[in-house]
Amino acid sequence: MDTISIRKDACEPELLEVPRPEPEPGQALVRTLRVGVDGTDREVIEGGHGGFPEGEEFLVLGHEAVGVVEDPNDTDFEAGDVVVPTVRRPPDDGENGYFARGEADMAPPEGTVERGIDGAHGFMSEYFVSEERFLVEIPEELAARGFLIEPISITEKALELADASRSTFEWDPDTALVLGNGSLGLLTVAMLAREMDVYCLGRRDRPDPTIEFIEARGGTYIDSRETPVEEVPEAYERVDLVYEATGYAKHAITSLYALAPNGVAALLGIPDPWEFEIDGGRFHREFVMENKAMVGSVNSGPRHFRTAADTLADLPEAALADLVTRVVDYREFGDAFEAADDIIKTAVQFSER
Amino acid sequence: MDTISIRKDACEPELLEVPRPEPEPGQALVRTLRVGVDGTDREVIEGGHGGFPEGEEFLVLGHEAVGVVEDPNDTDFEAGDVVVPTVRRPPDDGENGYFARGEADMAPPEGTVERGIDGAHGFMSEYFVSEERFLVEIPEELAARGFLIEPISITEKALELADASRSTFEWDPDTALVLGNGSLGLLTVAMLAREMDVYCLGRRDRPDPTIEFIEARGGTYIDSRETPVEEVPEAYERVDLVYEATGYAKHAITSLYALAPNGVAALLGIPDPWEFEIDGGRFHREFVMENKAMVGSVNSGPRHFRTAADTLADLPEAALADLVTRVVDYREFGDAFEAADDIIKTAVQFSER
Repeated sequence: MDTISIRKDACEPELLEVPRPEPEPGQALVRTLRVGVDGTDREVIEGGHGGFPEGEEFLVLGHEAVGVVEDPNDTDFEAGDVVVPTVRRPPDDGENGYFARGEADMAPPEGTVERGIDGAHGFMSEYFVSEERFLVEIPEELAARGFLIEPISITEKALELADASRSTFEWDPDTALVLGNGSLGLLTVAMLAREMDVYCLGRRDRPDPTIEFIEARGGTYIDSRETPVEEVPEAYERVDLVYEATGYAKHAITSLYALAPNGVAALLGIPDPWEFEIDGGRFHREFVMENKAMVGSVNSGPRHFRTAADTLADLPEAALADLVTRVVDYREFGDAFEAADDIIKTAVQFSER
Repeated sequence: MDTISIRKDACEPELLEVPRPEPEPGQALVRTLRVGVDGTDREVIEGGHGGFPEGEEFLVLGHEAVGVVEDPNDTDFEAGDVVVPTVRRPPDDGENGYFARGEADMAPPEGTVERGIDGAHGFMSEYFVSEERFLVEIPEELAARGFLIEPISITEKALELADASRSTFEWDPDTALVLGNGSLGLLTVAMLAREMDVYCLGRRDRPDPTIEFIEARGGTYIDSRETPVEEVPEAYERVDLVYEATGYAKHAITSLYALAPNGVAALLGIPDPWEFEIDGGRFHREFVMENKAMVGSVNSGPRHFRTAADTLADLPEAALADLVTRVVDYREFGDAFEAADDIIKTAVQFSER
């Protein structure tokens, strides 16, 4: 069967033929419908993040997938069920407590591999197999956009952690600042805009589809070249929630300054080392005197995938139509992995339902 | 009646006579038993923190008090009830939602005054008045050490916030690192040592009563001059919980590096501005990849005072005896506010039950 893979030492992904996998006991065989592309795929291709499966000379790409069960094998699925796979799997040296508890997203980096990212093949193939417990069934009417469930689940987890950190007192957030206007940031804008006033920070010139996306959701675009995060309170207002999806390391500090008292910043970016100077006294003092919180969040678990399916069903059609700017056939994936100013979200199609 | 107060422009507190207060409707008159001294009092005396009540030329010191109701006035208390006052009161320009909800500890700095610290007289006086809702009744057998309930409540709140931030997954902390061997740090060591392995960081030479205190609780003393926080994982182990009570601004960054995956750091210190260089990329990346959290915590609410009374009753007698190194009569308070190597916790006595 065909896959879209990156070989060791290659700079570009390619179509690579591999044997169609056979499901082992406890696994189902899934025919792939669509797989989303995001910034992590670009980092994996460029070698900045993730790694190859042990002993393999290539990595099948893709971690945002939706498919239909082709062969339930001995699982509780039925042929034709629409499913979304979670990303993390136990490492080669075996299961651990995080997986046993259904909390693989809380495993430390050495306690997991990630399909399509780090140490395990992804879903950009005509078929894939997966253990039953890592497949989340979704309503079939969500199949066409089911590849958005994984990124939505990433935000569900981050927001769940943020909410939990504020659960000891009455916290009713009504303003949010999303840092980053990549596809994850914009998806989060659409999610938060259902119940909050949302600002979204980027560094694009108008006209730009991401700015149009933000404004169509009722949000406010902030150009970080004019208004860096720490100046948002003066130029706009202090916010209850910051959602960071830039990987720009200064945001792990300056997010705090954009928060209103009792606010929380959720950090999701994964930057490289970078030394710079901060006013650590201000950072520390404001953290304490204003009862602020910061949570780091990586990956997501089956619970977040299920909530994400509900969220996907609830998001306005216009937002989803604006977000997914193209769907390409896998045989002609071409520049599907390249970022461009007119592209928000690309999905690669492997088959039709 | 006598008070221990600091006058504007004075460097030292003094005995100052003021009229005995008359309780207004909704207020009880309390006869003060004992008031604890802590680092905040020293900062207030030195002018580094807090401020005088509006229009006043002096501030009555003290925020860690225990007393007996002398005149219940029209409240539900009875004469002789043992009570501990909370610290925050509505600002002069009136009530706000935080007070209405019983969450004064979550009010922003401009939404509150703090008795004995910032903008309102404290409890180092023979009598004080307080609204009923800011008095927490405690069992009379806790009266002699009731002045410890306020500092214990500070830790109760911080630990509640820390726990809440980890409540979305199974988190069973068994190692903690307390930064700071002042009286609040040591009280927290005694609290945490009931259920965790505890490390406590300081910079004292042996022999030293704080080191003896830590070791008597089964804890491990870490000398920060030999092992700074970021080297704790290599020299000892990574911990599930960091409790910062130093006000040393670098700890707001390096606490993260002492944490095991999924750990949380509670920050309580209140430093002055201080610029220094950090590896922000590492800070950000570790925050995210290891699902870590940080919570800032200031003050505490009535709920935390009630839990603190239970905690005080539960703490080992030896720990409390080791902690309170002296009780001085208020008329001879002398150097009660000065830190010294042989002093852990001082209480000033105003009357006997």
